[in-house]
Amino acid sequence: MAAEQDPEGRAAARPLLTDLYQATMALGYWRAGRARDAAEFELFFRRCPFGGAFALAAGLRDCVRFLRAFRLRDADVQFLASVLPPDTDPAFFEHLRSLDCSEVTVRALPEGSLAFPGVPLLQVSGPLLVVQLLETPLLCLVSYASLVATNAARLRLIAGPEKRLLEMGLRRAQGPDGGLTASTYSYLGGFDSSSNVLAGQLRGVPVAGTLAHSFVTSFSGSEVPPDPMLAPAAGEGPGVDLAAKAQVWLEHVCAHLGLGVQEPHPGERAAFVAYALAFPRAFQGLLDSYSVWRSGLPNFLAVALALGELGYRAVGVRLDSGDLLQQAQEIRKVFRAAAAQFQVPWLESVPIAVSNNIDEEALARLAQEGSEVNVIGIGTSVVTCPQQPSLGCVYKLVAVGGQPRMKLTEDPEKQTLPGSKAAFRLLGSDGSLLMDVLQLAEEPAPQAGQELRVWPPGAQEPCTVRPAQVEPLLRLCLQQGQLCEPLPSLAESRALVQLSLSQLSPEHRRLQSPAQYQVVLSERLQALVNSLHARASP
Amino acid sequence: MAAEQDPEGRAAARPLLTDLYQATMALGYWRAGRARDAAEFELFFRRCPFGGAFALAAGLRDCVRFLRAFRLRDADVQFLASVLPPDTDPAFFEHLRSLDCSEVTVRALPEGSLAFPGVPLLQVSGPLLVVQLLETPLLCLVSYASLVATNAARLRLIAGPEKRLLEMGLRRAQGPDGGLTASTYSYLGGFDSSSNVLAGQLRGVPVAGTLAHSFVTSFSGSEVPPDPMLAPAAGEGPGVDLAAKAQVWLEHVCAHLGLGVQEPHPGERAAFVAYALAFPRAFQGLLDSYSVWRSGLPNFLAVALALGELGYRAVGVRLDSGDLLQQAQEIRKVFRAAAAQFQVPWLESVPIAVSNNIDEEALARLAQEGSEVNVIGIGTSVVTCPQQPSLGCVYKLVAVGGQPRMKLTEDPEKQTLPGSKAAFRLLGSDGSLLMDVLQLAEEPAPQAGQELRVWPPGAQEPCTVRPAQVEPLLRLCLQQGQLCEPLPSLAESRALVQLSLSQLSPEHRRLQSPAQYQVVLSERLQALVNSLHARASP
Repeated sequence: MAAEQDPEGRAAARPLLTDLYQATMALGYWRAGRARDAAEFELFFRRCPFGGAFALAAGLRDCVRFLRAFRLRDADVQFLASVLPPDTDPAFFEHLRSLDCSEVTVRALPEGSLAFPGVPLLQVSGPLLVVQLLETPLLCLVSYASLVATNAARLRLIAGPEKRLLEMGLRRAQGPDGGLTASTYSYLGGFDSSSNVLAGQLRGVPVAGTLAHSFVTSFSGSEVPPDPMLAPAAGEGPGVDLAAKAQVWLEHVCAHLGLGVQEPHPGERAAFVAYALAFPRAFQGLLDSYSVWRSGLPNFLAVALALGELGYRAVGVRLDSGDLLQQAQEIRKVFRAAAAQFQVPWLESVPIAVSNNIDEEALARLAQEGSEVNVIGIGTSVVTCPQQPSLGCVYKLVAVGGQPRMKLTEDPEKQTLPGSKAAFRLLGSDGSLLMDVLQLAEEPAPQAGQELRVWPPGAQEPCTVRPAQVEPLLRLCLQQGQLCEPLPSLAESRALVQLSLSQLSPEHRRLQSPAQYQVVLSERLQALVNSLHARASP
Repeated sequence: MAAEQDPEGRAAARPLLTDLYQATMALGYWRAGRARDAAEFELFFRRCPFGGAFALAAGLRDCVRFLRAFRLRDADVQFLASVLPPDTDPAFFEHLRSLDCSEVTVRALPEGSLAFPGVPLLQVSGPLLVVQLLETPLLCLVSYASLVATNAARLRLIAGPEKRLLEMGLRRAQGPDGGLTASTYSYLGGFDSSSNVLAGQLRGVPVAGTLAHSFVTSFSGSEVPPDPMLAPAAGEGPGVDLAAKAQVWLEHVCAHLGLGVQEPHPGERAAFVAYALAFPRAFQGLLDSYSVWRSGLPNFLAVALALGELGYRAVGVRLDSGDLLQQAQEIRKVFRAAAAQFQVPWLESVPIAVSNNIDEEALARLAQEGSEVNVIGIGTSVVTCPQQPSLGCVYKLVAVGGQPRMKLTEDPEKQTLPGSKAAFRLLGSDGSLLMDVLQLAEEPAPQAGQELRVWPPGAQEPCTVRPAQVEPLLRLCLQQGQLCEPLPSLAESRALVQLSLSQLSPEHRRLQSPAQYQVVLSERLQALVNSLHARASP
């Protein structure tokens, strides 16, 4: 796999990819003399997506890339000046020109770890003006990445570990970089590969793809290839005319299948031969441009058997319409019978790939016991997340000047948890996750084996828990703008996803009507919430 | 409004933002000696989105930008070489290095015009290898742009012409450029402005925004601004201490509202004063950080009346939680009463802006007769299109080497219409749209006033129509890579959207259970479909 490369950082967000109110607030802070007040924000979500009980934290590498490159260029500042009041003090724009993230510190859930409601995915602290400006781009980078990674992980859970999952949704993605983000994070979430070449080039995602219907229908059968000869796989001996050899095999195949030799479409066969000449070691047949049974399958067998004679093995067939499971079962039977008939055992196990609007429900059917489907291509359902196309992350001020801050709106759903916090994951003696605890940063960490009193959300009284293990959740990622440790590779984060999911108990991992995983507050954090409430309600 | 500017073309797609199978097919065509065969593809959708009967064509300007810049760089070709067979002929990669769109011709539905199922949004012709490679990026650029423009147009139809609609969904967008695309095309579809600064800078979309809860909660009330003085709007006379003046007004306001003067949150008031000092001519109060009635509203009135004394008029209030309509009605009553009490008539009509998960249903309620809401901010619902997050455009080969091509798959839904085509819109004598006609490119255009025999989809026999007007639908946009006429500005295309929608009859424009708009085939096109069917079913 290629290394992750993005020399131009082109795919990352830009400082002006932000809401205008971040800039107007920046001016407000500056005018109030508060631009450099120490502030801390938390980025979190309030509800797990898709009706599930977990999400995956993702997008951190894009955030880090963005933060390290963060600088407003002259053109950016000039544009802001054009939309801010004309009598704005020029010193404000000088301040904007000088901004970077060299005073910003970020703690984060590691890429690919489990995330639950209210637990910060990111804690961002630094000068108030700067960390306010970062809100929208960070939300944009984390929300969708985490959503699509979670979606992909659900699909992987449904598919089981054996099926190969290919993400192929670029054409359905919401905008160009939406496609790049989707391909990157569906791989992180558990897919095996992507059709998206740019995700391969820039992010090191394994890429896959063979041919589309347009390739098949572009051939009539009357085309004459400039060089019809193919050398044997072993490289020794004379080449053969692949089209002629396939024609010979077609007669055997049609006799075996009980078809007339005129029935299979000659253009489709010519397309298969052309593709096989270019990819003799990676020939895949797309079977449903005309008729799977009367054309696509016999043409595939003819070309695959001709290639086989030369020592090449076809890598698969693909179906893109109709009842995919049933056709796969029948195709496997044909493969088995033909393997016996023509004494080519490898033919039995030629992988069968399917695609066509596959969602969670359709995937469950394709992944059922006994299914002969090997590779599943998913586009729209993984990329656009139609069950819930946004995660709804928020970025909330929790402290400024060392003082806790809280939004006390009358809508309890929109209230926030005040103060600079730490987060811990409590595990049972069998290594399974019990709950996450949020507490004030200055509190001592919970201790393994010791009883802890905590407040579940909305509870009238605390409960107790005695964890067998305690894991701190947030890692120092950027300190004063400096990367604290190398970020894990995409493949490492992808492995963490599967490890994390394995630690989740079945009732929380279940995709339909799961038990909710608890995120609780320490007694001191609960007391702070209560005191800020009391202060606001005289 | 700033002109559309994107000097670096950074927001556009890149050639490798494509599916790998485009590259593998390119090698297949090349190996078969067919790279330069003349080919034509059509880009269209099969069903209108959101259960409606229309869509809007959008994304053309991004396609043109992409096509004109299309070139594979060395790094791109090297990456492709790394994922194609190692023994691939180096001449293929030389061919890739030489590619551009100088032989590509594009016809298109004008940006912002109505689009219906099966009618090409783009017709792309040129050398087979190149036009195949363009498939994924063109789909990626057109599908989402058209989807979000259509979504925005529906929201505008619901809101009516008077309400101001602000798109503010960047943080919910599916990836960074998803946000830029969403902001651009929701403006095209009928929104008034966007929160997205980059859309303002690069695309000339009007931008808007004021302040968020974090700004409000960041103030405790004990802060001392370095310069608390504000000069009068007229610029003459001494400045006054705005916070002190607001404090005086607060007493009047609280007395008027029957509140204790200690009830409104001092931090919220300090935040409003700070914002007003920075934006005296554009002060907006965000009312629901603590309590709308006991804090946000009296604090807003105090600061607005203090500003008013200096000759400045507040530009609005914003609500982001609770029952938005009901609160707006009550706030308007308070404004009217305060305007009378304090003899400041302008206060009656201070605009009320609302936001918070507004979808089509919620918008209909906010736009009802008598609503006092003036400005509506919509994020997730316009940007992610949760009703249907992808349009499902396809890009299908219709001709190669001058011969029509058709995908005859056993799934009738996935069949295509063969041949190079023209498309016309037939209008009645009242200027309303009757139907669209697809015909072969070489057929004469339908004539106004003359009877025409056409085939509705799936019909057993033709029907006749006598249009009062006939409009050709597809305009030559790029000819052999050259732009044929200047593209309309975004604002011009935005105006075309509203004109187009006005020509649609109410039964087609209706958003719920509309009558389907017919797209019919000419007799010759129907005959070609029949003959290709017959040829494939011997």
